[in-house]
Amino acid sequence: MGSVRELPEAIDLSHHLNTKSKSRHPSPLKEIIKYMGVDGMISLAGGLPHPSLFPLQSVNVACLAPSAAISSDGSANKSSEDIIKLSLGRNDSPGDLDLTPFLQYGSGAGNAQLLTLARELTDRVHSPLYQYDCLLHPGNTNAWAKVVDLLCEKDDYIFVEEFTYPSAQAFWIPLGIRAVPIGADAEGMSAELLEKVLEGWETSHTNSRRPRVLYLVSVGSNPTGLSISAQRRKEIYDVCVKYDIIIAEDDPYYFLQYPHYQPSEDAVVPQESEAFSASEFLSSLTPSFLSLDYQGRVIRLESFSKTLFPGLRLGYFIANPVFTERLLRATEVETQDPAGLSQALVIALLRRWGIDGYLRWMQSLRFQYQTRRDWLVGSIAKNFTLVEAGKSPIPTAQGLVACLKGESGELKPIFSFVDPTAGMFLWTKFYFSGVKRFGEVAATETSDPEQAFADELWAAWAKQSVLLTPGSYYHPWQGPDMVTSKARGAEPQTAHFRLSFATPTKVQLEQGVDRLLAVVQKYWA
Amino acid sequence: MGSVRELPEAIDLSHHLNTKSKSRHPSPLKEIIKYMGVDGMISLAGGLPHPSLFPLQSVNVACLAPSAAISSDGSANKSSEDIIKLSLGRNDSPGDLDLTPFLQYGSGAGNAQLLTLARELTDRVHSPLYQYDCLLHPGNTNAWAKVVDLLCEKDDYIFVEEFTYPSAQAFWIPLGIRAVPIGADAEGMSAELLEKVLEGWETSHTNSRRPRVLYLVSVGSNPTGLSISAQRRKEIYDVCVKYDIIIAEDDPYYFLQYPHYQPSEDAVVPQESEAFSASEFLSSLTPSFLSLDYQGRVIRLESFSKTLFPGLRLGYFIANPVFTERLLRATEVETQDPAGLSQALVIALLRRWGIDGYLRWMQSLRFQYQTRRDWLVGSIAKNFTLVEAGKSPIPTAQGLVACLKGESGELKPIFSFVDPTAGMFLWTKFYFSGVKRFGEVAATETSDPEQAFADELWAAWAKQSVLLTPGSYYHPWQGPDMVTSKARGAEPQTAHFRLSFATPTKVQLEQGVDRLLAVVQKYWA
Repeated sequence: MGSVRELPEAIDLSHHLNTKSKSRHPSPLKEIIKYMGVDGMISLAGGLPHPSLFPLQSVNVACLAPSAAISSDGSANKSSEDIIKLSLGRNDSPGDLDLTPFLQYGSGAGNAQLLTLARELTDRVHSPLYQYDCLLHPGNTNAWAKVVDLLCEKDDYIFVEEFTYPSAQAFWIPLGIRAVPIGADAEGMSAELLEKVLEGWETSHTNSRRPRVLYLVSVGSNPTGLSISAQRRKEIYDVCVKYDIIIAEDDPYYFLQYPHYQPSEDAVVPQESEAFSASEFLSSLTPSFLSLDYQGRVIRLESFSKTLFPGLRLGYFIANPVFTERLLRATEVETQDPAGLSQALVIALLRRWGIDGYLRWMQSLRFQYQTRRDWLVGSIAKNFTLVEAGKSPIPTAQGLVACLKGESGELKPIFSFVDPTAGMFLWTKFYFSGVKRFGEVAATETSDPEQAFADELWAAWAKQSVLLTPGSYYHPWQGPDMVTSKARGAEPQTAHFRLSFATPTKVQLEQGVDRLLAVVQKYWA
Repeated sequence: MGSVRELPEAIDLSHHLNTKSKSRHPSPLKEIIKYMGVDGMISLAGGLPHPSLFPLQSVNVACLAPSAAISSDGSANKSSEDIIKLSLGRNDSPGDLDLTPFLQYGSGAGNAQLLTLARELTDRVHSPLYQYDCLLHPGNTNAWAKVVDLLCEKDDYIFVEEFTYPSAQAFWIPLGIRAVPIGADAEGMSAELLEKVLEGWETSHTNSRRPRVLYLVSVGSNPTGLSISAQRRKEIYDVCVKYDIIIAEDDPYYFLQYPHYQPSEDAVVPQESEAFSASEFLSSLTPSFLSLDYQGRVIRLESFSKTLFPGLRLGYFIANPVFTERLLRATEVETQDPAGLSQALVIALLRRWGIDGYLRWMQSLRFQYQTRRDWLVGSIAKNFTLVEAGKSPIPTAQGLVACLKGESGELKPIFSFVDPTAGMFLWTKFYFSGVKRFGEVAATETSDPEQAFADELWAAWAKQSVLLTPGSYYHPWQGPDMVTSKARGAEPQTAHFRLSFATPTKVQLEQGVDRLLAVVQKYWA
């Protein structure tokens, strides 16, 4: 940690704290804690249950080794050499992790050993440019709720991507907050469009203060699968500096970055031998917003949900101490620290694996999700003719356009998508122009024909036994007068659907695309 | 659960939901879930990470049996027959709990098996009179924050006990909410005083709506150690029906109820043979507010923190479905369900122990905390002369008055306390009348001489190496103009301190009281 001391301090951004977070006081009970460590002190001040009265005595855990081979059907090879044993007990036996502090009430900040590991990982992966702080949280859902509660006032506006994660919105919609979605191309959110909205804010929104928060899932975004390019990140960050915007970087898919889809006869899981060294792996990853941040205006939400498992309900904030200190005050009264067994397990695992082992495990995951992306895109390529957007008949398309051949051999564009290079999702934009049934729907459902037809299409797929996620779930909430396709300014005669390739098997993905095609053939006949 | 259907439904209390909680919508993603179970359905709609990519393979847990003898020094006897093994694995081997669903994202409500156990326990312990619902939460700190966020508006008032838990206040103070403390006697909060405030509210507070929430730690309250008597509970409940008040029953110490202190030469842990049957044990407990509630106006916060261990970060709400449904909406966007390993462990333990075993374990805890209470009160009795309040020179005293003999043999009252019959705390009220140094302090510190002298006393004890918790930590927040002893209407020349007997050993408790006495002798000389 020696080098950290030489880094500059974050700039003062305390004017971003909202009224509520400024009003929080440290719990007076915590003040006594410093006296408790004094030699010979007898404390009648604690309110903790007696640790001898906890029934849990020890926990033995079997985990995969970081390099455990995972076969191409997605099942891990559980041969004995791939299993490591972790021992957590009430007594600190050699090699064990002493479980006692994890069974007791902890400090809101979380266990000091885990925070040290979080800092090591942060220094290694993001090399922040200023004196940051880490604070544990019980998952990114809670972390984002705490960030909104830290910075936003009732009836504020928040910058979001063109399509955004509905559970992230569901927290702030009841606060009267509205989204300002910023358009994107294949490189992610447009810095130019962001700046344009900011420049014009005072004239376009005379009654509302300028948005102060930009919420981003900047790698393998949910739902669009888009990752923001390194160059674009710099441009967005510069706009945020110019207009004093705080960036909430919700980045659960950061380690699941992989190369573009390459057509091949049969996609296979990349071989073990293709694994990079830890440093090669890290340099293959797009730099995070945190790593660009020289002022302390990025609040990064780290999660173990996608890298270890979601049931941990454990992650951490990396941020300017002016923010983590207030987030800690909120943590003390809202959640306390994450569950003890989750903390103990992650410490034991990270110690046994080491940071290098953890990064090696990330590569196993990356290979897996890359393979699954290949299965899905490969299935689409088998059933549709893929045309590069620039060479397609759709001028607004990005990425690839999936076409069907008409009776006279001409290519009919059905949907476009940007081949995802991270995460778990493929985001499609369907083109309804020339679809007879869409014309019929539009004749009766005049308020939002695109949505009405998209609903019908979704139901037809469900009847064909394939479920997609309706794109409407990801429309940023801009208020009750902005809910139709037209009012939102959506491209006419289009609608989106999200396809996840995280869970289905190869056969299921192939069958799923077959079923998708069957419905398309009926409607686009 | 057959009998539950025959119970009446709760009355409609939806007018209690605040603007924010009424504005919450279910996540649209959850709508798809019902289609996912359809036979042969291929889902490309899920967003879950692939479960084969979770490194955790199995967990083996050693726990104490419910009847494990715990020796009088508080350490559990860990002989092999007192240890039971729980096996949690990725495959559902016979006798194992399948860990897979606990590693994955869960539903906001929590695991169905755990909810079933929570209902069984609720029916057994509280026999609610209406069709209630259960919902998991990550600990009572979070549960109470969610209740405030469900019912209260900015700048509301909340009814609390005369002294209340500071972390519970720390959540709502930044919302501009203020406390209305209600006085108590040895039987707990006064129903009469509560009704009086409600009767006069419209004239005493012309600009604020009537409080709608009563927050209670009704058994072994933190800090006062008071438990509300069965008769008093009925009276309070009736007032709440009359004035349409919702009762938040925060009851972590419910199972830690024990008889009054009986002087004896040397307090010992009650023998195993003194354990009641489960039903005898349950009928020895004061009925909860939930068990009296025929309308659905009690929101009960259940916690495993004091009965198993705090690091679980796991408990559950028991409430009117109109409240649990909205609390579930908040859970989905704020915390999701509690950590998976905590849920899995509690299910495995409750199954192995059975409900009867769980109640047997509660009796072990109860015996332990009773013994610790006896150690503390016994030490006080050795060092002070205890006089019943009614026979003491302090007309306002409740419970017992600890006195010292003056030079001419007269009894000088030092502090009074109500011998706690539950929980972990003993609450003292010190009398400063006639203390020379208090007079000196009062001559200079005119704004709040009681607090100034209490601070000096606290520091003198800390110097003597004994820590007490200042009573000032537990003053209900009534606004910035109500912070002095006089403005709060506190009894002149008194101040409170909280003594915890949960953690110290017998020797530490005796030494602690010796040190307390040493400082008292100096000041009261």
